[in-house]
Amino acid sequence: MKRLTTRVAIVGAGPGGLLLSHLLQLAGVDSIVLERRSRTYVEKRVRAGLLEGGTVDFLRAAGLADRLDREGLVHEGFVFRFGARAHRMPFTELTGRTVHMYGQQELVKDLIRARTAAGARLWFDVPDVELRGLETDTPAVRCTVAGEPVEIACDFVAGCDGFHGVSRRSVPPGALTTYERTYPYAWLGVLAQAPPAAEELIYAVHGRGFALHSMRSPAVSRLYLQVEAGESVENWPDERIWKELHTRLDIDGAPELAEGPVLEKSCVALRGFVTEPMSHGRLFLAGDAAHIVPPTAAKGLNLAVADIKVLAAAFREFYETGDRGPLDGYSAACLPGVWQAQEFSDWMSRLLHRPTEGPVFDERLQHARLEAVVGSPAAARNFAENYVGLARERTPARGGRP
Amino acid sequence: MKRLTTRVAIVGAGPGGLLLSHLLQLAGVDSIVLERRSRTYVEKRVRAGLLEGGTVDFLRAAGLADRLDREGLVHEGFVFRFGARAHRMPFTELTGRTVHMYGQQELVKDLIRARTAAGARLWFDVPDVELRGLETDTPAVRCTVAGEPVEIACDFVAGCDGFHGVSRRSVPPGALTTYERTYPYAWLGVLAQAPPAAEELIYAVHGRGFALHSMRSPAVSRLYLQVEAGESVENWPDERIWKELHTRLDIDGAPELAEGPVLEKSCVALRGFVTEPMSHGRLFLAGDAAHIVPPTAAKGLNLAVADIKVLAAAFREFYETGDRGPLDGYSAACLPGVWQAQEFSDWMSRLLHRPTEGPVFDERLQHARLEAVVGSPAAARNFAENYVGLARERTPARGGRP
Repeated sequence: MKRLTTRVAIVGAGPGGLLLSHLLQLAGVDSIVLERRSRTYVEKRVRAGLLEGGTVDFLRAAGLADRLDREGLVHEGFVFRFGARAHRMPFTELTGRTVHMYGQQELVKDLIRARTAAGARLWFDVPDVELRGLETDTPAVRCTVAGEPVEIACDFVAGCDGFHGVSRRSVPPGALTTYERTYPYAWLGVLAQAPPAAEELIYAVHGRGFALHSMRSPAVSRLYLQVEAGESVENWPDERIWKELHTRLDIDGAPELAEGPVLEKSCVALRGFVTEPMSHGRLFLAGDAAHIVPPTAAKGLNLAVADIKVLAAAFREFYETGDRGPLDGYSAACLPGVWQAQEFSDWMSRLLHRPTEGPVFDERLQHARLEAVVGSPAAARNFAENYVGLARERTPARGGRP
Repeated sequence: MKRLTTRVAIVGAGPGGLLLSHLLQLAGVDSIVLERRSRTYVEKRVRAGLLEGGTVDFLRAAGLADRLDREGLVHEGFVFRFGARAHRMPFTELTGRTVHMYGQQELVKDLIRARTAAGARLWFDVPDVELRGLETDTPAVRCTVAGEPVEIACDFVAGCDGFHGVSRRSVPPGALTTYERTYPYAWLGVLAQAPPAAEELIYAVHGRGFALHSMRSPAVSRLYLQVEAGESVENWPDERIWKELHTRLDIDGAPELAEGPVLEKSCVALRGFVTEPMSHGRLFLAGDAAHIVPPTAAKGLNLAVADIKVLAAAFREFYETGDRGPLDGYSAACLPGVWQAQEFSDWMSRLLHRPTEGPVFDERLQHARLEAVVGSPAAARNFAENYVGLARERTPARGGRP
């Protein structure tokens, strides 16, 4: 068995793991990134596409935003449609913050390119990662790299391998408390080679269910339909998808949805999940490995970057001064913002989806919520501060539970 | 059978029916008020005690606020307690609006005195009201007044007789759509001869459940405890109540709750209920006859006054000009504000009560909501505008449903 050493072994080459590796290098801290999937798979995986202003600022400061700044679409508002009316939510006017539309896989490509150019040890197709000694001062990662068994001795492990990854599952039963909610609806997501029908996102609340008009570029639309939980994509041939999108998204006087070849379609469950704490011994969980939000408010990627920002700073502090305080405080520093995002994602999910349980009362509450968000400056400001990420950044890390 | 005539027969001598009768007289429109209970019962019935600024202004303009202005306690903020911390919500600073603490039964006493002084036909102990011909142009009310059978011919009937009253039940099945939600918890309310522990309301979120410290006067406290739905007041001897109130309300550094003789205690279910439309033929439903909100945000009495304000103006318009438009538009004018209040009451109920279903995830969301409301100026302003009633007043009457 080949033996290697590093400071931080990073499991997962999604945006979180890659960003952490980059930041550690800036801090002079060595790391190795291990990814189960191939580079091609990771670079093509369609995920989120909305970056909060704070996320963009952070990536820019880390020297990772050149293409994002060139190709990302800067948004200053979006449109709510309900009751056959359209209401613009001018979130930049309300908060001073913009958001960028930029596919997660584009960010991943940029990060991989940066890591590769820097000569990082970033290994794909590593299927069998096994974490050892997490509760000792000498943890290690065992895996197979290019057909060869390897053991990596390290100081810490960063679990950035998503909800289904090995990292969280390596913690002994009972050491972590998990909190979970499943929603009674799912999203059918479609990537289409079709110019967006509008420059801004459209969140449409319709009697047949929620629909979202989004985009990845001036030529590629990203569209979502609320479907029942457990729905299969096989039940949704392209013509059915377009018909349903027209029904829910087209309203009088609005430009009609443009159709085009469907590049990718898939169903995604809506789930809320949090693990507390976000660390165990010398393992630190970040992003989807530690928490999942329903996609409604597009917070997943932004939360992962927020985790990594805290974690990278804590590692830097440890290696510069020997102070483990920030590492010990990692979980407590992240969780208030995580729960703030859960709360807003839950609220926004209820705001937009057709209720499936006790529909009658909930539908009226939903309408009242929508009227408030578009009709009250205070409600709009509160919404917008959450949407662009300001609210979470302001959420203090505090002790004490109700 | 004795035959009488009036313009508007008003069923119920709660605050809504009495206020309507008063306003109709100001507009020169004759009415008769019929109440099932005795005057003593109605004047002693313990109900809400928080009047929004808009409600107070309206009562003042109607010449009904002399004692309210003398004895009502003007509040400019309240206190949230959670996680052993206290956070003041300065709602007047945020909205420019105050609220008055003034028991509903005090307002009822003032209204009865005013109606009686004006020589109004206001009859108590009328047990057997029966509504007839609501779908015709000549409705009538049959009942027994002081032992004598009476038929009152009228132009319109105002149903102000609460959730359990005869008015709504007189509408043929299927003519109204009703929307209902029951909450999995109840309130044990206590009126005590004890000076309030603080000048302002205290909303306490505690691991054992919600508690509310309120007051009716400098000598009388009004206290509430979250209990399980269906709980019986027999299970709550006074000493158990005080012990539980101390546990949930006392925190370090805060003045301790003062005990005193319990004047009244009862359990109240938390329910949301709305009927659509709020009228049928020549019957107009107002207040609890048309809608119930959980007591959490103290909106019930304020919604009733808001209904009556619209209804009285519509009657005035009809009798002055013959235009039935405002009467036909009564329901559509009231319902958006009713649903706004339902939404805020539902949200505030979830904010404050110990979740009883799937507690773990909901408890964390609740904590995040509390942190947002006390930590974010935008969230605080949005909350405060709802609390003092501004948000509802601004809610436009609009058509269109999502």
